[in-house]
Amino acid sequence: MAAPDTIVNLDQLDPLKLKRDEFLLPSDTIYMDGNSLGPLPRSAKERVASVVEEQWGNDLIHSWNKHQWIDLPLTVGDKIATLIGAEKGQVIACDSTSVNLFKVLASALKINSKRRVVLSQRDNFPTDLYMVQGMSEFLGHQACELKSVKEELLLDSLDDSVAVLMLTQVNFRSGRLHDMQALTQRAHDNGVLVIWDLAHSAGALEINLDQCEVDFAVGCGYKYLNGGPGAPAFIYAAKKHHRDMAQPLSGWMGHAAPFEFEHDYRAAEAMQRFLAGTPNILSLAALDAALEVFSQVDMAELRAKSIGLSELFMSCVDASDSLSEFELLSPRNALERGSQLAYSHPQSFAISQALIAHNVVVDFRAPDIIRFGFTPLYLSYQDVWNASQVLIEIVEEQRYLDPKYHARSKVT
Amino acid sequence: MAAPDTIVNLDQLDPLKLKRDEFLLPSDTIYMDGNSLGPLPRSAKERVASVVEEQWGNDLIHSWNKHQWIDLPLTVGDKIATLIGAEKGQVIACDSTSVNLFKVLASALKINSKRRVVLSQRDNFPTDLYMVQGMSEFLGHQACELKSVKEELLLDSLDDSVAVLMLTQVNFRSGRLHDMQALTQRAHDNGVLVIWDLAHSAGALEINLDQCEVDFAVGCGYKYLNGGPGAPAFIYAAKKHHRDMAQPLSGWMGHAAPFEFEHDYRAAEAMQRFLAGTPNILSLAALDAALEVFSQVDMAELRAKSIGLSELFMSCVDASDSLSEFELLSPRNALERGSQLAYSHPQSFAISQALIAHNVVVDFRAPDIIRFGFTPLYLSYQDVWNASQVLIEIVEEQRYLDPKYHARSKVT
Repeated sequence: MAAPDTIVNLDQLDPLKLKRDEFLLPSDTIYMDGNSLGPLPRSAKERVASVVEEQWGNDLIHSWNKHQWIDLPLTVGDKIATLIGAEKGQVIACDSTSVNLFKVLASALKINSKRRVVLSQRDNFPTDLYMVQGMSEFLGHQACELKSVKEELLLDSLDDSVAVLMLTQVNFRSGRLHDMQALTQRAHDNGVLVIWDLAHSAGALEINLDQCEVDFAVGCGYKYLNGGPGAPAFIYAAKKHHRDMAQPLSGWMGHAAPFEFEHDYRAAEAMQRFLAGTPNILSLAALDAALEVFSQVDMAELRAKSIGLSELFMSCVDASDSLSEFELLSPRNALERGSQLAYSHPQSFAISQALIAHNVVVDFRAPDIIRFGFTPLYLSYQDVWNASQVLIEIVEEQRYLDPKYHARSKVT
Repeated sequence: MAAPDTIVNLDQLDPLKLKRDEFLLPSDTIYMDGNSLGPLPRSAKERVASVVEEQWGNDLIHSWNKHQWIDLPLTVGDKIATLIGAEKGQVIACDSTSVNLFKVLASALKINSKRRVVLSQRDNFPTDLYMVQGMSEFLGHQACELKSVKEELLLDSLDDSVAVLMLTQVNFRSGRLHDMQALTQRAHDNGVLVIWDLAHSAGALEINLDQCEVDFAVGCGYKYLNGGPGAPAFIYAAKKHHRDMAQPLSGWMGHAAPFEFEHDYRAAEAMQRFLAGTPNILSLAALDAALEVFSQVDMAELRAKSIGLSELFMSCVDASDSLSEFELLSPRNALERGSQLAYSHPQSFAISQALIAHNVVVDFRAPDIIRFGFTPLYLSYQDVWNASQVLIEIVEEQRYLDPKYHARSKVT
């Protein structure tokens, strides 16, 4: 399919156009699911092979010192820091987002100890809610209680029972983007600490945690950061909390002197106290290498292209009569969105499967949402235009009626 | 160094002698540190490359279904189950040993909810103690309290305040092996549940969790299981506890229906409720492949060779006048030991560094211990005899006096 000249021009002028070569993507695939699992960077493939063969295979146990394995949680953390507007020394890579949420929730509740409510949004990503529910069940509701409300009720709910406002910056379904600065400010004005979940925003748009005076944040390594399936997650904690923060998963790697093998726990300085067990080196190394693709990237340019790609897709959908049943669930205003578009359609599951079969990889989210992710490092305007044409074809020719597109898998 | 004929014979008769070829070990190295980081199995190297290039690189997000990524925590768990005497469906691989301890501690305290003390041994591996301390600090001492006593006081301390007896089967320093069956029985007789940490025993000796009626266990993937640096750890929970156990790290992967994205947490059936965040696929796949080296191994034969290797080493040390300053800290009776020998010596740090420089890889544990690990899958009798000769040479020639063997690294 030949795209109009304007689209070809957009690609020629794209300052990020060479980044695609840093990824090993199947050539026939338009991958619009980097918001779920980022593709394989060349650098990660090479690093994993070297860590396995040379470091683990040859240097064995010495690698903890020789290849600085022991420092990886902080070195990876510092690389992530530059992507989320944080001074170094405030980010650490470890464990999963869920487990990290537990740690920052515990820290925030300890610091704001006269209050007990964790306020969140009803349609936050479920694991965020589940982690608060788990803590509440464990500590007792007098010590920790989840209050989840509709977005429009958030501000009015910031009363003096609320210890922590826990929000995901970009909604996992709709892609709706919160105003981090304003919400953080309002929370602070009401004596409330904030935890931002950056799962759907880190690596996808400009974030200024320090400038917004955010207290804590967590995020995911395997979406826009391209760290590989189930990559380590990360934690941000503002320097001002480093002395008072504490968390109960106090494993030996969070000890001030782990190799002294002391009987009693003494928390390490600063971010290291968020470590629990032995860090997972293969996956930290993969993430460390994957972050190299961001080294020359201006996040403002990345955001501009992300908006350009999604606006193009939206205009293709809008312009097609065949797609009139598609309802946009994401905000129409690009400044209120992350890097994805969500549409509902009565046949969305089968259409998503048909798109995948036609090498346009998207994902489906229950009950009836198709998510299209726009990742500027490896998607071109041509790709996005092609994807829209494939979608139109599938709908016009009703290919989604084919029974093979209706079979459900375990993971959706 | 030519070993005596008897040693050459032992290697010829060794039923495990071909296993060495399944590992990619540097040819000039005698690796006696598999109790700290297991070496690289060929199978793991190949699998990681295939997971990175074909699964992540090519099949991308589809791999969650196509390559059963979503099932890995349980498929790996079932493989580990066969090594520790557990029926399938009672083991899951995930997170770190420290984080997993938190989950089983929470489960055991919930089940035995009228009691609050976690009894352990003063010289248990510190992270085990730290995790209880962290939980105690978090929940309050009225809900959870660590009591750590000397080994000889354990049995007398099983009073009716004790909810859980938490022990490591093989001591990380001395290699001393507990009588799992007897201690579990005594605990149960006193209304106490047990948690066994198998970090230094899983993959090194015969373990019969089901037969010993153990309640919970955790263990490490990167030592004798050879899963790679910081490999996922595992949890065992006896079937009888599956209905009542609960843990506060209730992330989405432990939900009964994670892809329904429900607002409220509902724990999955059985072992899956120990999952929190998205499983780390690269490292689970490495561990899964590494476990293949055990597929034809009779654990009784493995244990017999482990004893043979360590007895040989001990007899070499005993027979050498030059090594008279070496004090054995491990039990002399092989049946009371795991798969390692610990010696103290006034110059143990420098001697350990000299051994490493002479390609005999051991490790040092503060204050003055050298640990020699005997891993029957890739060490021969000849290796062990050679290691003893190198040790004798280093001591006789006082090579450890060289200042280069006195510099300390970050990780010891």
